[in-house]
Amino acid sequence: MPTAKLVWTGDMMFVATDNRGHSIVLDTKPEAGGKDAGIQPADLVMMSVAGCMAYDIVSILKKKRTDLRRFVAEVEGERAGEHPKRYVRMKLKFRANPEVKLEDLQRAFELSRDKYCSVLHTLKNPAEFEFDVGVE
Amino acid sequence: MPTAKLVWTGDMMFVATDNRGHSIVLDTKPEAGGKDAGIQPADLVMMSVAGCMAYDIVSILKKKRTDLRRFVAEVEGERAGEHPKRYVRMKLKFRANPEVKLEDLQRAFELSRDKYCSVLHTLKNPAEFEFDVGVE
Repeated sequence: MPTAKLVWTGDMMFVATDNRGHSIVLDTKPEAGGKDAGIQPADLVMMSVAGCMAYDIVSILKKKRTDLRRFVAEVEGERAGEHPKRYVRMKLKFRANPEVKLEDLQRAFELSRDKYCSVLHTLKNPAEFEFDVGVE
Repeated sequence: MPTAKLVWTGDMMFVATDNRGHSIVLDTKPEAGGKDAGIQPADLVMMSVAGCMAYDIVSILKKKRTDLRRFVAEVEGERAGEHPKRYVRMKLKFRANPEVKLEDLQRAFELSRDKYCSVLHTLKNPAEFEFDVGVE
């Protein structure tokens, strides 16, 4: 089962580590008590869905042996004005170099959107959450 | 509006950058064509929700001037067996040092869960998605 661990390192900074040992620093803006030394948790969710779809698309285009040379994904999130300021809309833009046939790119995108992207489908179909809170 | 950009750097590797200039490397396991040089997109969504709640909790405990010395969050995800292998359950565990009163921790956790955590509420209330796919 996938797992991750986050350790508070003071102020509003955390180090998050996956179960393969990769770590990233999470932090927030000075206005929110941080030192701006890392990515905000709310930005990670945008990177997660854009990354998941980008993986699927690149993977499918590579398997099809298309002439993929450049691939960029951009994501823009729109958040509600009131707490909890959840994302109400995300706009994702995917661009490949022009040597890739648009129909191949479009087909790879549709396969990710409709069949493969675990993060997009997690965001569309709410998971159950269980919590365990304690001191020790 | 929050934004992020991901650039493919070859194989199955991407560099993701937020709008404040912080970057992380995304990659996948060798079995999936990667070099295991970074975090998988599906792991980021777990870090995102755990990080968001951890932020809220630490922030509230600090404002309450509790004796917070240590704070750790762990998250475990359960994914469906079939594509798109979405997360069906996430288990989140939060631990503070024993000098923190359990009721203070519990109250901070509840405020995050019920009122403040943007990522948890995004995962519980599906956002709209818009896509723009092209070559250029």
